[in-house]
Amino acid sequence: MRATVLHATRDIRLDDVDVPKLIEDGDAVVRVVASCICGSDLWPYRGLPEIKGPQRIGHEFVGIVEDVGGGVETIKPGDFVIAPFAFSDNTCPLCRLGIHTSCVNGGFWGFPDRSGHPVDGGQGEIVRVPFADGTLVATPEQPDESLVPHLLTLSDVFPTGHHAAVSAGVEAGSNVAVVGDGAVGLSAVLAAKRLGASRVVAMSRHEDRQQLAREFGADEIVAERGKEGASAVREIFDGIGADQVLECVGTADSMKQAMLSTRPGGRVGYVGVPHGVELNVPAMFGRNVGLAGGVAPARAYIDELLPDVLDGTVKPGRVFDQSLSLDKVADGYQSMDERTAIKTMLSL
Amino acid sequence: MRATVLHATRDIRLDDVDVPKLIEDGDAVVRVVASCICGSDLWPYRGLPEIKGPQRIGHEFVGIVEDVGGGVETIKPGDFVIAPFAFSDNTCPLCRLGIHTSCVNGGFWGFPDRSGHPVDGGQGEIVRVPFADGTLVATPEQPDESLVPHLLTLSDVFPTGHHAAVSAGVEAGSNVAVVGDGAVGLSAVLAAKRLGASRVVAMSRHEDRQQLAREFGADEIVAERGKEGASAVREIFDGIGADQVLECVGTADSMKQAMLSTRPGGRVGYVGVPHGVELNVPAMFGRNVGLAGGVAPARAYIDELLPDVLDGTVKPGRVFDQSLSLDKVADGYQSMDERTAIKTMLSL
Repeated sequence: MRATVLHATRDIRLDDVDVPKLIEDGDAVVRVVASCICGSDLWPYRGLPEIKGPQRIGHEFVGIVEDVGGGVETIKPGDFVIAPFAFSDNTCPLCRLGIHTSCVNGGFWGFPDRSGHPVDGGQGEIVRVPFADGTLVATPEQPDESLVPHLLTLSDVFPTGHHAAVSAGVEAGSNVAVVGDGAVGLSAVLAAKRLGASRVVAMSRHEDRQQLAREFGADEIVAERGKEGASAVREIFDGIGADQVLECVGTADSMKQAMLSTRPGGRVGYVGVPHGVELNVPAMFGRNVGLAGGVAPARAYIDELLPDVLDGTVKPGRVFDQSLSLDKVADGYQSMDERTAIKTMLSL
Repeated sequence: MRATVLHATRDIRLDDVDVPKLIEDGDAVVRVVASCICGSDLWPYRGLPEIKGPQRIGHEFVGIVEDVGGGVETIKPGDFVIAPFAFSDNTCPLCRLGIHTSCVNGGFWGFPDRSGHPVDGGQGEIVRVPFADGTLVATPEQPDESLVPHLLTLSDVFPTGHHAAVSAGVEAGSNVAVVGDGAVGLSAVLAAKRLGASRVVAMSRHEDRQQLAREFGADEIVAERGKEGASAVREIFDGIGADQVLECVGTADSMKQAMLSTRPGGRVGYVGVPHGVELNVPAMFGRNVGLAGGVAPARAYIDELLPDVLDGTVKPGRVFDQSLSLDKVADGYQSMDERTAIKTMLSL
């Protein structure tokens, strides 16, 4: 079968690899229907951290179950399934607390499982799924093809935006600002409005992204960045700032912008993988600005978000503005690297 | 009248100063019944930051109202009042959000108000109180003398411990650890139990403080510090750590200890004024450990905490293990500096 392999900085290829087979009793083998490229995939694509050898990549996919191990009870061959971006047993103490990304038995696509067996990346044709019952969420029936992009976002990008909002404490009536106009930031706008935020400010300089932010419910757009951007957000919210700011980038500058946009007593929810972020703790302390978030436990949120996707209440798949066949995966990376695409879907 | 003045590092004296008078319409003049020394007073006492000239000090007091300005509506001469450690109008947008320490018109005892008029410190005989209606909380009747120490803690130390617990999200059934066995840490133990925490671990190496922690409801004591202490906390809580950790010291070491004691998805509530704290953001992100807290908006909490103090449900004044007359204030500072006293009450 074919799978995406990152060989070196910006050298990414669709290679022929071994077809995965069931190894553990709890495994499933899933034929991928669609996968996608994540903003976080761009870090290794750009050589951060340094690539030491060919590595599988991709952690967002939906597909059809082909086979299951003898210990699998709820997932059946033929099921259409959503794979969250981490696999997890859904039974350990941390899964029960809703932190599936810290599952004591879990792991991440493209890396070995805890027994040392390789686990496939998501940007390929077939994937061995550990803990199939714990990891996968099957839809009640085979979805219409038009729903596939929206279901695919439940792997990562929509729950990640939702996690930013939940971690920051967004609730009915909240005043929210979102830093970052990538697919996660745009999803965070959608998630905040879904949770009842009364006013959401999207921070974006790009017209196409501003447009999608508005479609996702953003009430206002701030095009300025840094201190000027934060000042504009504070002005919008009574001169004091937003109750919650959703930081969806992960750089030192974006975090500073988020902190300065937050009102005293407010909270930053962050889901951008941090690179070089340093926090001004005395300033946070003096203003009672909290920070919460992290790597999103997507599995914990799918049950809540799936019904709204199935009935069309939300259309998170609008973040995909490029759709390619898997053999064009390298073009997809290049588009996202150059920011000519917001997010790229890869179809089989 | 006499008031405590810090002249230089560890040079603190009770000096004769001008008797304060009403200046603004909203002022009250309060004769202090009791005040106390805060752990945070020890920072300037130790010369951090450098003392540039004689400065008033003390921010926790209770007293009797002597006089009020023409604009004061709810506070009356003769009232027994609790003064939170910041003055605030209780009407601005940030006060309405419960962040009275960020009041747009407020300030701190011992420093000038926003009009530039000096405001007295709390460790003196008489204090001019700006925004008397907003700042002060009067008890329903004159309290019995035995209640005074407990009421005095509502100025700062008990609401500050409570703020750590609230910021961290302590609720019924929580597993909690408290870093710091000073008066704030001990108050945090009491606050966490009051909020319904099922198990509270106090981290303390001192037998007298361990004893008080147990009286305040601590279920277990961990005497180890640093990595060993955090490891012991994790062992107590299923090997994963506490749901909430209350950081009540403010040093780099105590924050590290707090972070390492927190389970994935948990939260650190911090109220120790941070000195040299640096956060490992990637580790927080990977484990979804949040941080919230800051300078406690004591005023926001007094209404909730006062009834439990008045009816004896909680006895937070147990933190005072030294009681001196005001003219012994220098001895009080020395005791707290040398950690021979947990917290010192100063009576008039």
